[in-house]
Amino acid sequence: MLHPDRLFPSDPAARSIAKRLYHSIANLPILSPHGHTEARWFAENHPFADPASLFIQPDHYVFRMLYSQGVPLEHLGIGQKKIENPRAIWRIFAENYYLFRGTPTRIWLDYAFHELFGLEKPLNISTADLYFDTISAALATTEFLPRALYERFHIEVLATTDSPLDDLQYHRQLKNSGWKGRVLPTFRPDPVVDPDFEGFAANLATLGEQTRQDTTTWMGYLTALRAARERFRALGCTATDHGHPTAATADLDAQAAAKLFTCVLAGAASAADKELFRAQMLTEMAAMSLDDGLVMQLHPGSLRNHNTQLYQRLGRDKGADIPTRTDYVHALQPLLTRFGNERDLTIILFTLDESTYSRELAPLAGHYPCLKLGPAWWFHDSPEGMLRFRESVTETAGFYNTVGFNDDTRAFLSIPARHDVARRVDCAYLARLVADHRLEEDEAYEVAIDLTYRLAASAYRLTERP
Amino acid sequence: MLHPDRLFPSDPAARSIAKRLYHSIANLPILSPHGHTEARWFAENHPFADPASLFIQPDHYVFRMLYSQGVPLEHLGIGQKKIENPRAIWRIFAENYYLFRGTPTRIWLDYAFHELFGLEKPLNISTADLYFDTISAALATTEFLPRALYERFHIEVLATTDSPLDDLQYHRQLKNSGWKGRVLPTFRPDPVVDPDFEGFAANLATLGEQTRQDTTTWMGYLTALRAARERFRALGCTATDHGHPTAATADLDAQAAAKLFTCVLAGAASAADKELFRAQMLTEMAAMSLDDGLVMQLHPGSLRNHNTQLYQRLGRDKGADIPTRTDYVHALQPLLTRFGNERDLTIILFTLDESTYSRELAPLAGHYPCLKLGPAWWFHDSPEGMLRFRESVTETAGFYNTVGFNDDTRAFLSIPARHDVARRVDCAYLARLVADHRLEEDEAYEVAIDLTYRLAASAYRLTERP
Amino acid sequence: MLHPDRLFPSDPAARSIAKRLYHSIANLPILSPHGHTEARWFAENHPFADPASLFIQPDHYVFRMLYSQGVPLEHLGIGQKKIENPRAIWRIFAENYYLFRGTPTRIWLDYAFHELFGLEKPLNISTADLYFDTISAALATTEFLPRALYERFHIEVLATTDSPLDDLQYHRQLKNSGWKGRVLPTFRPDPVVDPDFEGFAANLATLGEQTRQDTTTWMGYLTALRAARERFRALGCTATDHGHPTAATADLDAQAAAKLFTCVLAGAASAADKELFRAQMLTEMAAMSLDDGLVMQLHPGSLRNHNTQLYQRLGRDKGADIPTRTDYVHALQPLLTRFGNERDLTIILFTLDESTYSRELAPLAGHYPCLKLGPAWWFHDSPEGMLRFRESVTETAGFYNTVGFNDDTRAFLSIPARHDVARRVDCAYLARLVADHRLEEDEAYEVAIDLTYRLAASAYRLTERP
Repeated sequence: MLHPDRLFPSDPAARSIAKRLYHSIANLPILSPHGHTEARWFAENHPFADPASLFIQPDHYVFRMLYSQGVPLEHLGIGQKKIENPRAIWRIFAENYYLFRGTPTRIWLDYAFHELFGLEKPLNISTADLYFDTISAALATTEFLPRALYERFHIEVLATTDSPLDDLQYHRQLKNSGWKGRVLPTFRPDPVVDPDFEGFAANLATLGEQTRQDTTTWMGYLTALRAARERFRALGCTATDHGHPTAATADLDAQAAAKLFTCVLAGAASAADKELFRAQMLTEMAAMSLDDGLVMQLHPGSLRNHNTQLYQRLGRDKGADIPTRTDYVHALQPLLTRFGNERDLTIILFTLDESTYSRELAPLAGHYPCLKLGPAWWFHDSPEGMLRFRESVTETAGFYNTVGFNDDTRAFLSIPARHDVARRVDCAYLARLVADHRLEEDEAYEVAIDLTYRLAASAYRLTERP
Repeated sequence: MLHPDRLFPSDPAARSIAKRLYHSIANLPILSPHGHTEARWFAENHPFADPASLFIQPDHYVFRMLYSQGVPLEHLGIGQKKIENPRAIWRIFAENYYLFRGTPTRIWLDYAFHELFGLEKPLNISTADLYFDTISAALATTEFLPRALYERFHIEVLATTDSPLDDLQYHRQLKNSGWKGRVLPTFRPDPVVDPDFEGFAANLATLGEQTRQDTTTWMGYLTALRAARERFRALGCTATDHGHPTAATADLDAQAAAKLFTCVLAGAASAADKELFRAQMLTEMAAMSLDDGLVMQLHPGSLRNHNTQLYQRLGRDKGADIPTRTDYVHALQPLLTRFGNERDLTIILFTLDESTYSRELAPLAGHYPCLKLGPAWWFHDSPEGMLRFRESVTETAGFYNTVGFNDDTRAFLSIPARHDVARRVDCAYLARLVADHRLEEDEAYEVAIDLTYRLAASAYRLTERP
Repeated sequence: MLHPDRLFPSDPAARSIAKRLYHSIANLPILSPHGHTEARWFAENHPFADPASLFIQPDHYVFRMLYSQGVPLEHLGIGQKKIENPRAIWRIFAENYYLFRGTPTRIWLDYAFHELFGLEKPLNISTADLYFDTISAALATTEFLPRALYERFHIEVLATTDSPLDDLQYHRQLKNSGWKGRVLPTFRPDPVVDPDFEGFAANLATLGEQTRQDTTTWMGYLTALRAARERFRALGCTATDHGHPTAATADLDAQAAAKLFTCVLAGAASAADKELFRAQMLTEMAAMSLDDGLVMQLHPGSLRNHNTQLYQRLGRDKGADIPTRTDYVHALQPLLTRFGNERDLTIILFTLDESTYSRELAPLAGHYPCLKLGPAWWFHDSPEGMLRFRESVTETAGFYNTVGFNDDTRAFLSIPARHDVARRVDCAYLARLVADHRLEEDEAYEVAIDLTYRLAASAYRLTERP
């Protein structure tokens, strides 16, 4: 089911180069500096429940495809706290598994089925029960406890993504547990910097209580954010993450910013005011990063909850977040005018709008010292998507303004598969450069290590242990 | 002139897979669910006139290229009812045939010349007369009558595109003729839903007469549209088609819609009002489709008649329709908020803006049950264009949210060539997936049949005979 | 260091076709109809100073990459009139040369190092001095004087880019020198048609003095521009060049244009007025081109001097010009409505927004007689960029609505390397068409000559010697 040469070029000369490159880096440890796994899993180390709640319920790539073909989400346990009939869900999934042909989901899942559970036959309705039983049995063993899998996956760092209001109890528990796994929080301040976030005002009040600051004043609010960042940093956090609808930044003077804050807090802000506030907060975050060294990640451009009916019925993260056209050149200019030339600041840019790769992102990252490019993201975290990323940005930004791979997943069992795909695609790309005599093979070995390990380690400051 | 391995990857391993796949589907019948041939041809079954009026005069791909290189359109018979000197036109074409190097037009024409007329030498000025005489002689034979060609091309369904005011006399004639060919009308309501369409007000009056409805009232107008659709459906129509400048949709309440209709009908509408009216009408059409089962096709994004001088002199469809940047995510939201989750509705989206493939269209189709993606369209109906389509959409939307191929042509003789190109490119794409071990070869055979036949049959509801 | 098969497809069948095609055109003379070398170099024929001021100081591709990775521009001699320690700069460059892996800069530089200076070892910190000394020694010899290099490079035409206020003394000197090299000026009127250009009002005054026209009146201003164009034409100029922020054109009546001119000259113009003025001037330039035969080049879409701090400290052209989204379809319509059908006008369109290749530029150039497409530009003047250009435009616009290659460089020593890359990539593209049986090999040989030589010669009217 898993061919050893998968994802390598079919031309024999390029393929043999790709294989050599891949074998030189295949066993490097995994750095996962951006993702959505839960610290609780590793703190509690309880077994995963069942195949459906492990593979289907949390994976929007999986259930949105089934939904697009007419399977009601309720039939898949979506929106249920506890799945009642996981085997029935699994059978629906198995019956429709052919829908994933040609998608990265198929590659990730086949990898997990084969490498972790030893399954050799293709998944379909006739093998659905075999799969369900095999996986269920494995999940009950100690080898499949979260910590055991973390070690088996050869993970060196695993970053979670956390609300600034999170008490991080599981991260604290892990830090004190003596377990050698390194699970780090990431500071994702959207709930307290985005006025459109559910419960924004209440969140600010909570932030004030937690930090003993008066978050009804601009100065108190900023101080509270600094304190929250510090709390994260103390638990190993090296990065912040910002999921704004656009990449807009602003650089208001202190008085104007304070006035805008008051307006926003009073609930009197227009849509434009709210956008301006988010924009200003990115610049404020950059200022704080210059002080405390946290690396900024900017993930703009997703129109969240596009499907209103579904959102009203089942809430957010139901596979209906749709990318939109995104501008970076004008949007980032206010922040860059202030901080763009800072060599001690790192801002990692992501995009869902591939037309910006060569037009905006590579030229920006190929000039500004503070900017780096995150890997192909979300819908583009796929063989063709990654290849387009490399082909579009490398010639202008080079390799060294990129930051290695992010798996960005809450599907823990897909992590080794995702990193494996990234490593194979990078080696396939490098192999093409070598085969076309654009790069020497000895250099390609070095670059392969950079793309797999060193760029992530340095960009995310993972080697500077606190 | 036609190599059996054309359009297959040059790498021998991938090429041999592509050949195997292609041979398994090469002889499947042609489903042509969207195009611009004329029912009259098949109803009357008269011979085609001459090579110039068959290959040059109706084909904007051909004459716009010659025009771009300085050949006056009048020298090509464009704008003339009856061509006076077809041989002179043919010679100009032959002399400039090298201009089509690297274009799909060249591939389609060479296919027709070779496969249908047995011409072996390349077309140029020295073979112009040989071509003209050979083609002319063939057109005079019974083997080249429209119905004979339909059968020779192994067409199973051929859809035309028709005004809602068309009396469909030729479709009726065909239905009663006993001929086994299946030529279906498509309901294209632009003349009666687009206030910018020439003669809009008069068209509404005609619609009222035809349906015996008062089309000066909103309710009468909607009833008339329903009746017109029913008239089409009775003749086998399974789909509607909408050629709007943008993908904008709206969902006004009945009172606001009626008020807008009155304003539009009075000729008092601003450009924005007209755009809103078109937007509202897409949602109305979706509501009707839910009732009568017609599949919707949306073809937005062409700025028609860009060349004002030419339009004033020669009218529309003179090769001067130019694509524009198109938004789907915001534009479709009103319609999708109302009907997006309907499993019995099918809306097929096309685009001329390739940057939307991976950014907007694949994520939308990979989520909403009602959405499917039409094939690479118009300027992108070409080997590279089709390959970019597959590479950009498959990883997010899969194969099963696409609908197979459309030839979308009024150049009847190019139909087998166009389907052959699509089949070859799909097989080339599948072969690459197989060669890279992203798809098993046995699955690729199934997918090849899906892409060639089954997806079109089911998406366009061609197997549900009325 | 330079493999003879570099940039050719790795598939053996396609590679051997590419090699044959390349060998048939590799030795054709270089036509360089658009670039930024200086006539002074060839007029004075003085030796180039040192490796750093030759390869690093003038090349924004080089120093922006170093800057993006934290090297202060001042350490590279940027902003200094005379470099003080070129060897120290060279060492920084050598130490960081690995940053250019995968970029076209690396290909261009390796070509120059190997082909011109015979350097065989890779450049890095350990070979930095060897390189510096070897290059320095060579530059002191007569073989490396500008005219000798021009001849060695087999250049047939080399166009510079010049302000309309430039006295063109070096061009005159060259014309009278008896040297057979053909170095032509290009008329770049931005300083006198763009109200945002530094010193616009003063520039107009100077233009008035030079041409003895009253440039405070609209009519006098237009007459002065005509006179300036004539002065360029007399020295062999065949083209104008326009570096506007957008592709906007306008077609005001004479009275409105005169009024706008007065407003702009009075310094009373808003940003929109200035944009409208630039737009109007493109149409005025087209009118003049119809009279005097100069070919127009339009280079829109760069947001100049994005890095405000750097601009204030070091001025323009410091690697901080960033592409923006560009519209052509609406922007060009006013000009095209007036002149689009003129067969004696040539307007060559460039873009930094690759999403326009297939969506806007190829359809426009594939229709309008006056439009041609310039080659992949600036950030896209690279193997992948050129390939995307061909793949995106050829199927709609063909080869014959394109104009061959531009090196667009002030890095004189990179000219043969850049043309070599373009020739290799074109041959690689053609080889793929041949290998896939989309083009016959005998035709590919013809097209290769067209792309290398004939299209540039005819589009830029280089064979019509004045």
